[in-house]
Amino acid sequence: MFIKNAWYIAAMPNEVGRSPLQRWILDEPVVMYRTEKGTPVALRDICPHRSLPLSMGELVGDQLRCGYHGLVFGTDGRCTHIPAQTHISPNWRVPSYRLVEKWRWLWIWMGDSNAADEALIPDFHWNDDPDWIPTGGHFEIKCHYQLLVDNLLDLSHLAFVHRTTIGTDAVAENPATVSREGDAVRIVRSMPSCPAPPLYVKLRGFTGEIDRSQDILFTPPSQVVITSRSMPKGTNDTDMALEYRVLNGITPGTNSSCHHFWAVARNCAPDPNVTRLFHEGSVKAFSEDVTVLEVQQTMLDRMNGRIDWMHYGADGGGNAARAIIDRLVKREATGSANAQR
Amino acid sequence: MFIKNAWYIAAMPNEVGRSPLQRWILDEPVVMYRTEKGTPVALRDICPHRSLPLSMGELVGDQLRCGYHGLVFGTDGRCTHIPAQTHISPNWRVPSYRLVEKWRWLWIWMGDSNAADEALIPDFHWNDDPDWIPTGGHFEIKCHYQLLVDNLLDLSHLAFVHRTTIGTDAVAENPATVSREGDAVRIVRSMPSCPAPPLYVKLRGFTGEIDRSQDILFTPPSQVVITSRSMPKGTNDTDMALEYRVLNGITPGTNSSCHHFWAVARNCAPDPNVTRLFHEGSVKAFSEDVTVLEVQQTMLDRMNGRIDWMHYGADGGGNAARAIIDRLVKREATGSANAQR
Amino acid sequence: MFIKNAWYIAAMPNEVGRSPLQRWILDEPVVMYRTEKGTPVALRDICPHRSLPLSMGELVGDQLRCGYHGLVFGTDGRCTHIPAQTHISPNWRVPSYRLVEKWRWLWIWMGDSNAADEALIPDFHWNDDPDWIPTGGHFEIKCHYQLLVDNLLDLSHLAFVHRTTIGTDAVAENPATVSREGDAVRIVRSMPSCPAPPLYVKLRGFTGEIDRSQDILFTPPSQVVITSRSMPKGTNDTDMALEYRVLNGITPGTNSSCHHFWAVARNCAPDPNVTRLFHEGSVKAFSEDVTVLEVQQTMLDRMNGRIDWMHYGADGGGNAARAIIDRLVKREATGSANAQR
Repeated sequence: MFIKNAWYIAAMPNEVGRSPLQRWILDEPVVMYRTEKGTPVALRDICPHRSLPLSMGELVGDQLRCGYHGLVFGTDGRCTHIPAQTHISPNWRVPSYRLVEKWRWLWIWMGDSNAADEALIPDFHWNDDPDWIPTGGHFEIKCHYQLLVDNLLDLSHLAFVHRTTIGTDAVAENPATVSREGDAVRIVRSMPSCPAPPLYVKLRGFTGEIDRSQDILFTPPSQVVITSRSMPKGTNDTDMALEYRVLNGITPGTNSSCHHFWAVARNCAPDPNVTRLFHEGSVKAFSEDVTVLEVQQTMLDRMNGRIDWMHYGADGGGNAARAIIDRLVKREATGSANAQR
Repeated sequence: MFIKNAWYIAAMPNEVGRSPLQRWILDEPVVMYRTEKGTPVALRDICPHRSLPLSMGELVGDQLRCGYHGLVFGTDGRCTHIPAQTHISPNWRVPSYRLVEKWRWLWIWMGDSNAADEALIPDFHWNDDPDWIPTGGHFEIKCHYQLLVDNLLDLSHLAFVHRTTIGTDAVAENPATVSREGDAVRIVRSMPSCPAPPLYVKLRGFTGEIDRSQDILFTPPSQVVITSRSMPKGTNDTDMALEYRVLNGITPGTNSSCHHFWAVARNCAPDPNVTRLFHEGSVKAFSEDVTVLEVQQTMLDRMNGRIDWMHYGADGGGNAARAIIDRLVKREATGSANAQR
Repeated sequence: MFIKNAWYIAAMPNEVGRSPLQRWILDEPVVMYRTEKGTPVALRDICPHRSLPLSMGELVGDQLRCGYHGLVFGTDGRCTHIPAQTHISPNWRVPSYRLVEKWRWLWIWMGDSNAADEALIPDFHWNDDPDWIPTGGHFEIKCHYQLLVDNLLDLSHLAFVHRTTIGTDAVAENPATVSREGDAVRIVRSMPSCPAPPLYVKLRGFTGEIDRSQDILFTPPSQVVITSRSMPKGTNDTDMALEYRVLNGITPGTNSSCHHFWAVARNCAPDPNVTRLFHEGSVKAFSEDVTVLEVQQTMLDRMNGRIDWMHYGADGGGNAARAIIDRLVKREATGSANAQR
């Protein structure tokens, strides 16, 4: 079960154009394209007639024609044309979904469209702000999306999974504090006087120890914003500071896959080479996560319910997020359309 | 559930010889071979002893010896020899099936052999008639066989799936009429004054519009004979006519796969180059269907019962065939051995 | 269901060292490694925290550190360190298993460790005896382990599966006698005046017929020792005798896979070239079995309970072993920890 009444990132803007794109979201097939004027459109990617994905068809103006028997559907999902057929029932339609471009991403609302308030789109402005320099990408990961949420809410794993990029023992050995802010969860870790991890040295040329902190904000259904700050130990040398946001939009694909839309944005060192280093370092680190997450999912599948997890302090953030998701899923199941508020 | 008391095409004659061939039919493994005199034999392809496929064994004269422990089975499925064993129970046998060569195909009867009347083999004589020039082949398709039956009974898909070979808008925009003839279904479409599709131009050199018609006959369990006629518009110029039969023998493989045995036979233009064009055009068109059908099956599997189909006029033939199949399957389940009549 | 209170071969000694090795045994993931002093250790290969296999982590001295969040576990499975965590519950542990080196194999006990008596390790001394020259290896086979037990207890298959190496018609045509010895099963076959199989000719240069015998001893859970003796027909020419033991340790991997640890040991012809011939011949023959066993498992899976097996004389040994296994599994299920005795 997924939270349906919520905005999820469905795609990066340049992935969606005049060629229909199929992507599974919340265990539904979705086809996305743009009208001739560029407006993004999302429909369920199954022809209601004989189940061929509409993404195998082609665009006729702003409408999508099925590649099997030629049924045509408008941007609202209504069937507008059937070859050799005069009567077209208003019930012959495919579900359409709100698809909105914001912060240089396309956000989809799979639930009750009456509740699809754009003001609820999470604040990911750092990806579309002249003061910040972003770089980002997309991973499709063969694991349940909550495994990736868990991963991002307990960064102690940096010391073990990402030791060659952004991890040092300091991340694991300094405990984090967890606080609830309504349906959000904030996890804060302070790491005074610690070594700079390899990527930071490469990026900012730190020569000695640093004072480092992480501020992680989870908001449902599954967005995670990480604020990372580092500067030379005991200084307030902002010229030498390294501050960045890691924006994570996590979208369930199926019950055993998810999409990880990520961006890393910084407000310093505009050199394109630094951007490249940030991009390559992030791809390397997230790829290390993909390996861990997919093996974790495989083990859960193979053990098939035969194991329980143990919990300790570092799980506080992840477990709080799981409790919030569980409550919101239940609330939706029992009827409130606008469960996210 | 499949109709069992019926003839299905099991193989093309040259596929079955002195090397045992395994093929799944009606969700049963079947081994086929020929005796030294050439008589085709079909047995269930599982040794009743320890379940190795008999097709992994070898022929000893007209009998088949299992490749594991050397049990030998006769053409009637009776176990005739067991190493170091004198007693052989008459119950130790593997099911045998009637396998009959007709119309240059091998037809199998998987149900009650007492009901296996060769007169029930459908009329596919065009594949074995001096007046007709056939060419044909075999596809194994990863879809339920009824998806292929649906496909052939609604040729409006030609305009979309086969646009570069045999499809024009005329096939979609001219409605077909459906009639029941006992347990058969006939679907007729008349297309006066329409453009010739690319393959027809190549075959017959049509220079202008044509008068075209399709006559589709479905007979249970799953045979479809398509009669296609075209001639220059407003003429009765039989010298310039293009008439052919498409013979389709559709055999369930498993619950999610089927065999498509097809032939295209014409009674004009004996030039072998025309035969080659017919063959290549047919393979290209049927391959386009395979793509559609396998994606369709994948979507049905992934949606796992979460979708209903919408129905409109063009589905009349396919739905009539489905109703007939359902009724015959039910009739067999409730006891009548010879349900096909 | 498997017999759990029993010794199974888990690995060959040189497979387990200072790099953690994952292997599935009795449908559990097991990680094996050696301490700095060389003592073999076996733990369940799932971190109890978030289910990553511990084998993806690394050794810290004699302890194993998870590669995800850095939890450390001792050789007894107890969690000894968690980053940034002072309290460690004594319940935070991973199951550990007895792992013992004997007869140049590593034996594991997956059941009640109080019952893990090393005296119960089966007598496979021929693999570690100055009077015998062994060679051996390991196959992982995608079949239920009892299919391999069946295979080894009915060697009549040699005449068909291994005709190019160790099989002749004599093995099939001479019946074997079966006797129960407590929970053991002995199967004896005498083959006077029979041709020498190809591998024997290669090994010992037999020029005429031989007197050959097989003595097969099954002991639960799934060990099989085969004693093979051949000498020139009608002689007692021990100089020309070929005697060897085939030691088979069969370990369930999952419900549809198993491990075959094998060794062939002889007490004659110490020439290393003969060892090489024995090794290559055995690998070739066992590979032929792998093909048969994996197809057999595939057929059983596809037929999904729709078939029963027929039984005849040659199945006496295998069926007796199955009855013993069934009884021991049931006895364990109803409570006796030390069911093997």
